[in-house]
Amino acid sequence: MPAFEKRHLTKKSENVSDWYHDVVVQAGLADYSVVKGCMIIKPYGYAIWERIQATLDGWFKEAGVQNAYFPIFIPMSLLEKEKGHLEGFSPELAVVTHGGGEKLAEPLAVRPTSETIMYQTFKDWVQSYRDLPLLINQWANVVRWEKRTYPFLRTTEFLWQEGHTVHQTEDEAVAMQTRALWWYRKFYEDYCAISPYIGLKSQSETFAGAKTTYSIELVMPDGRALQAATSHNLSDNFAKVFEILFLDESGERKHPFQTSWGLSTRSIGGLILSHGDDSGLVLPPKIAPHQVVILAIGGKDAETQRKVGKQARDVAERLKQSGIRAVVDDDAHHALGYRINEWELRGVPLRLEIGAKELETGSVAFARRDTFLKGIIAESDVVAGTDNLLDDIQRSLLERSVVMKQHLTREVATYDEFKTALADGRRFFRALWCEDPACEAKVKEETKATTRVLELNLADANFSGNCFACGAPATRKWLFAQSY
Amino acid sequence: MPAFEKRHLTKKSENVSDWYHDVVVQAGLADYSVVKGCMIIKPYGYAIWERIQATLDGWFKEAGVQNAYFPIFIPMSLLEKEKGHLEGFSPELAVVTHGGGEKLAEPLAVRPTSETIMYQTFKDWVQSYRDLPLLINQWANVVRWEKRTYPFLRTTEFLWQEGHTVHQTEDEAVAMQTRALWWYRKFYEDYCAISPYIGLKSQSETFAGAKTTYSIELVMPDGRALQAATSHNLSDNFAKVFEILFLDESGERKHPFQTSWGLSTRSIGGLILSHGDDSGLVLPPKIAPHQVVILAIGGKDAETQRKVGKQARDVAERLKQSGIRAVVDDDAHHALGYRINEWELRGVPLRLEIGAKELETGSVAFARRDTFLKGIIAESDVVAGTDNLLDDIQRSLLERSVVMKQHLTREVATYDEFKTALADGRRFFRALWCEDPACEAKVKEETKATTRVLELNLADANFSGNCFACGAPATRKWLFAQSY
Repeated sequence: MPAFEKRHLTKKSENVSDWYHDVVVQAGLADYSVVKGCMIIKPYGYAIWERIQATLDGWFKEAGVQNAYFPIFIPMSLLEKEKGHLEGFSPELAVVTHGGGEKLAEPLAVRPTSETIMYQTFKDWVQSYRDLPLLINQWANVVRWEKRTYPFLRTTEFLWQEGHTVHQTEDEAVAMQTRALWWYRKFYEDYCAISPYIGLKSQSETFAGAKTTYSIELVMPDGRALQAATSHNLSDNFAKVFEILFLDESGERKHPFQTSWGLSTRSIGGLILSHGDDSGLVLPPKIAPHQVVILAIGGKDAETQRKVGKQARDVAERLKQSGIRAVVDDDAHHALGYRINEWELRGVPLRLEIGAKELETGSVAFARRDTFLKGIIAESDVVAGTDNLLDDIQRSLLERSVVMKQHLTREVATYDEFKTALADGRRFFRALWCEDPACEAKVKEETKATTRVLELNLADANFSGNCFACGAPATRKWLFAQSY
Repeated sequence: MPAFEKRHLTKKSENVSDWYHDVVVQAGLADYSVVKGCMIIKPYGYAIWERIQATLDGWFKEAGVQNAYFPIFIPMSLLEKEKGHLEGFSPELAVVTHGGGEKLAEPLAVRPTSETIMYQTFKDWVQSYRDLPLLINQWANVVRWEKRTYPFLRTTEFLWQEGHTVHQTEDEAVAMQTRALWWYRKFYEDYCAISPYIGLKSQSETFAGAKTTYSIELVMPDGRALQAATSHNLSDNFAKVFEILFLDESGERKHPFQTSWGLSTRSIGGLILSHGDDSGLVLPPKIAPHQVVILAIGGKDAETQRKVGKQARDVAERLKQSGIRAVVDDDAHHALGYRINEWELRGVPLRLEIGAKELETGSVAFARRDTFLKGIIAESDVVAGTDNLLDDIQRSLLERSVVMKQHLTREVATYDEFKTALADGRRFFRALWCEDPACEAKVKEETKATTRVLELNLADANFSGNCFACGAPATRKWLFAQSY
């Protein structure tokens, strides 16, 4: 473990933004680079990403999704094929104009997403109904030029997975779009212990080139929204543009229907913001690289040091045997308080402590990262006890997230009520809305709040009333918030 | 499984190059893209890459190497800091000149390798001897502009891992450089069943900015060399340029010593070329995504079809339980010959067949991909029998590789002997060489053959004689060959 230097950590309650930057750097998650807007993902941050990858990749493979890899460069002429798609991405492109010392005949965009480069090839891969469904995923880096950047939350380069599937019918495509959405929901709820809003994006917020976009929206502690994963029904829009055709069972040539869906390193930003506190990061056990840290507390006596060190390693071994990701800290150079601070900063869900007293009494002391609650486990019971504590931490973080989500969501009926409440503090607002893009644009212009989603459980609700913002007739309630 | 179309496969014995392209495309390993020099890695090819990643990544992590991720963009001014490094890479750079619709103040290179962007940051990460060794690895895409490209073997964009480490002493750096070399050797020998030459690169072939380069060189069946992985001792060269300094135990500020080492998707090209035959790909069991395919051969009788299908799935389940990667083919639409051809094309090491006769006799028929040898295993013995066959295939492929390497290597004493032998057919040549770069350049100019390595086991050998090419005094024997 590299040496830590204790630095000042801004209190989350005082300034979320400064706190966030402090945690990212001090917990060893990421570092700023000399390239504007591009971050360095440090080993601890990357270990979280590897946990995320392993979780999602397992689900994808179970469902028959196959990984592949497509070129990072996309000829501008390809991007231009789907007009809406181009308009959506052209302000954010990084463009290669020179290669091998020569000016290129055609500039190449660094991929902002891979629909065009993939579908140009899917045209060749899809010939018959027997080739369908085609279920492809790619783990890759993508680049979207950003003016204002935050580590993980918004960076010029980021890492993600992008799923791209092709189906015989639009029903099948919608089923796939929904399946991906439920993977993301499961990931955020069951693994990240974050209760998200899930639903449909408004027309103006729909992915460039898609028919519908489902989104996972996280409620951040400062009341802002974080769009945390999206799943698109592309209908046969790209299939027509890229001339993808298949012969169906009856020998008829048809355009297939497509989906795309993605989740990125932004999810790590959501994790940090959701659970962190004034002591630093708080990681839910299911996603934490280290679930348990075992501190050997030897004091100044070499013999005790040796014994507690051995006991700590033995306990770690037993935990590892039962599948718990445990790490030992037997650092004899730093004060105990310093060591505790460092592990709290890094958000390890559970801390076990073994010192002379614990050796003597055959026990292990514990401290939960989420509640700071302390207690004692009999050493003979340490595996089951740790397991129970980790389960409880995972559950309790999710409960806390549910409460925070509810606390930060308010129903409003009028524009005045909305503006007054927003001035009082950022949050999510649920309101009857007319679904007119002009009304949406006006709200955004005046309040910086945007439509987040039409929640799935409210999608069919048929209210009868008036738009909170413009007063026009409205039948469905949407969520609005300012976003990251 | 997608439908296959049977196409003509060039014979390897007739034209290795055409055969290679045919196998890459027809076995579903890669596809050509609309972007010149960039390939699409198809699911089957990517599954091989995932096996390679899992193998190496496990070894790296065991040794305490941590994964991280650095930006894909490198400001030109950073690349220019190490002059030799810049000269080595500048002819191959792809350069981003525009971002977000504006011309950039400073052009950004798309990373050809990450020494400069990483070491700029290592300067901050390394302060004290307590921060050392710093052991970082990155799995990433890199871009080197290439005029002539071959899928996997030489592409403008490729995937790789690059290890970058920092040490207190040069001895430790050399130990790390050697450790990485042995990982690569183990990977090629024990997993890919390819017997490589390993050794030191000549001065002119040393990595740009390094003090020494170790290389893994594969002898391809056409007698050409494939540089398949490299490991560099950077000494304190980059540390000086990037002002990396650490305080040692006695409080003295010193430059640390560094290594870098990498293996790329080129390794898949080596696999294809090494073992493939006129029927297509031949994969060694340890790296094959599917180690065993079980063909259910039902004939036209629906009841038999049901029974053999069930038996095939049962056998697959038992194989999977014992850790063997098995897949069932119960395709009832295609002729048996077609199905066999397809699995041979894809190089699955072992084929099991279950039909009416096998059901009746409680047996399973097998066919080895490497030798086409056929036989019978008692169904009760299928797990152990399969295990033994896979072991034997792995061993026998390596033995074949050892023989081929020896067969394609020749000792030569004079330039005439060398040129005559080369005209007779490409191969590796071992010869006393003076180690003068001018002599090396002349040989390359006249014969297209380059120094490959000074084999490690011959590095200390002190021969007494004359350079095969120029006649100057020479004491060590080097390998020469034309390369991919």
